[in-house]
Amino acid sequence: MSVKLSGNIMRTDLQLADGRTISYYDQTSTERNKKDNRELSAQPGIGELRLDPLVNEWVAVASHRQHRVFLPPKELCPLCPSTTEKLTEIPDSNYEVVVFENRAPALTSPDTSWQLPEISGLDTPTADAAGRCEVISYTAKHEGSFAKLSTTQIRTVLEAWKDRTEQLSKLPFIAHVFPFENRGEEVGVTLHHPHGQIYAYSFIPTRIEKMLSAANAHYAKTKRVLLDDVIARELKDSVRIIAQNSEWIAYVPFAARYPFEIHVAPKKSVPDLAALSDLQSDTFPEIAKEVLLRLDGVFGIEMAYIAGWYQAPVLIGRDRMRLHWQIVSVRRQPGKLKYLSGSESGMGAFIMDLPPEQSAQQLKAVKI
Amino acid sequence: MSVKLSGNIMRTDLQLADGRTISYYDQTSTERNKKDNRELSAQPGIGELRLDPLVNEWVAVASHRQHRVFLPPKELCPLCPSTTEKLTEIPDSNYEVVVFENRAPALTSPDTSWQLPEISGLDTPTADAAGRCEVISYTAKHEGSFAKLSTTQIRTVLEAWKDRTEQLSKLPFIAHVFPFENRGEEVGVTLHHPHGQIYAYSFIPTRIEKMLSAANAHYAKTKRVLLDDVIARELKDSVRIIAQNSEWIAYVPFAARYPFEIHVAPKKSVPDLAALSDLQSDTFPEIAKEVLLRLDGVFGIEMAYIAGWYQAPVLIGRDRMRLHWQIVSVRRQPGKLKYLSGSESGMGAFIMDLPPEQSAQQLKAVKI
Repeated sequence: MSVKLSGNIMRTDLQLADGRTISYYDQTSTERNKKDNRELSAQPGIGELRLDPLVNEWVAVASHRQHRVFLPPKELCPLCPSTTEKLTEIPDSNYEVVVFENRAPALTSPDTSWQLPEISGLDTPTADAAGRCEVISYTAKHEGSFAKLSTTQIRTVLEAWKDRTEQLSKLPFIAHVFPFENRGEEVGVTLHHPHGQIYAYSFIPTRIEKMLSAANAHYAKTKRVLLDDVIARELKDSVRIIAQNSEWIAYVPFAARYPFEIHVAPKKSVPDLAALSDLQSDTFPEIAKEVLLRLDGVFGIEMAYIAGWYQAPVLIGRDRMRLHWQIVSVRRQPGKLKYLSGSESGMGAFIMDLPPEQSAQQLKAVKI
Repeated sequence: MSVKLSGNIMRTDLQLADGRTISYYDQTSTERNKKDNRELSAQPGIGELRLDPLVNEWVAVASHRQHRVFLPPKELCPLCPSTTEKLTEIPDSNYEVVVFENRAPALTSPDTSWQLPEISGLDTPTADAAGRCEVISYTAKHEGSFAKLSTTQIRTVLEAWKDRTEQLSKLPFIAHVFPFENRGEEVGVTLHHPHGQIYAYSFIPTRIEKMLSAANAHYAKTKRVLLDDVIARELKDSVRIIAQNSEWIAYVPFAARYPFEIHVAPKKSVPDLAALSDLQSDTFPEIAKEVLLRLDGVFGIEMAYIAGWYQAPVLIGRDRMRLHWQIVSVRRQPGKLKYLSGSESGMGAFIMDLPPEQSAQQLKAVKI
């Protein structure tokens, strides 16, 4: 099945050997019909959601993931296209961007009768770990990184993120969609091939709950959208802005938590990726590339980072919570990482050694 | 000045060369009067608290900490006692347990006029980063670990934690006291000498706010203390209990977030360390030692961990929030760490690969 998306990008959905869907996103017209010839056992069963009663937060317990692939050599990379000698997760011999469900997902499709239990402290029942965990491979080339993709390739990745947000939001058990990328072994990356992940949760994650609550409080007080006013402050202060174009702005936030933290937001705010206009979509690749090249340029090394899209939940807060992209790097100096230790991981209280204005200055000074 | 504490432990307070206080905690009677003969420049100035408006949380910005000591060789360890050749942070030539203020603290004493600004979103003013960051050195011996201390030494460390909680709680700008230990380079430890830290915050940290809110909800519904009922469930389920004695229980919690996570709580709950009875204090060392030896025994290696004391805030929730000790390890297999990547650090949604019942089984199976 093929569907035409914005930017003249086509999506073609096929099935993998164990029944998972693989979606090819193509800017150049390509026939996608390669069959997955592997013999795959069925996917592992569904995990469980347990409530942590000390803070009333869900924890997903997924025991079957212990033995997943860990830094395989290039010859065994499951994200490279298949060859006659080696069958991978991608049956075709080439591709632009693909998305498929994780082979051992932490969150997966539940029974049709599934419902998220109401949180009632210690009495809260355990539930099947409903949700979706997808892998998005940015390019068929094993070497490289998001920053080194062409703007055309980044446009296709963006269209895939937009489409996944739209498709996953339609599933009845999905409450929130989070596309993200972990880059670098320092943040636990187990596959070097440039790729990201998309977690679609069946509950509102803690951080989104807090963002929603702050956005609601701001709206109640001012009748305005919080992110719009955050951007207005950044424009007024101007010292922390590191890049902008007609549609997008990139800045180190006033209260950054990580030594190098960059937020990228559309100037005209939208609730989620699916709501981006064609103009916003077409102007994203250049700023995305610039920002990540600046990050790699600070120390002249490929920076480890976690980059995540914060968007409005599927059903609530869509007029209050707005889309932005947060890129955080744990590297504070060439040989030194920032670790989330006692204060950060135990208390949620972040200590920042590098003033945001200084890291913004370092990012701006990079010649690209 | 010397003060007699419980367990026949004496505290003696002296001044370091830059005016910081050092407190010696001694079980054997020892005269403490060694002068600090170093020439130290004044401590760096105070940092600032900035409000992150996206989630209404305080972030401490402390730019002067970038150049702190990083894994010094043993000859340069600032936590070893002073010798005639080398002057360290501890002027005396021997000690049992000492506590002193961090030389480059993220949080420090503010002006007497200091007040925490009310949180009002984007309009919230920046404040001086009030608080206290102390270092607690568990032993004069450079090699070793908390688990290898004698029960007598652990009793002295506990008395120091209790006393620090009591003393810091008296400071008018302190809202919450958090004693913790980061162990292992994997969690960013910069000094190998066995030691911990005590952060005293001038605001209620995010995690405590959430714990308080869950404890309040539970109390409103049941008129009972949440931790009491959590312990009752662990006793009833029994499969996750890994150690207990007459006064204490140690268990892997039902919704553990880390591959090896152990909570240690007094069976008769108390609000904070300072409120522990003599009996509770005297029976803690054996269970603390057992739990940490079990943790090191799982893979036969010294496990990296973060261990933190969760207690009631200084002024609120003291009848609802109760003391317990959380030890979390990021190691899931001998060669593999659990990283806080996209889902955990970006969304606060934890994915656990190892079922709590299984890690409890592994911890119980360790021969100690």
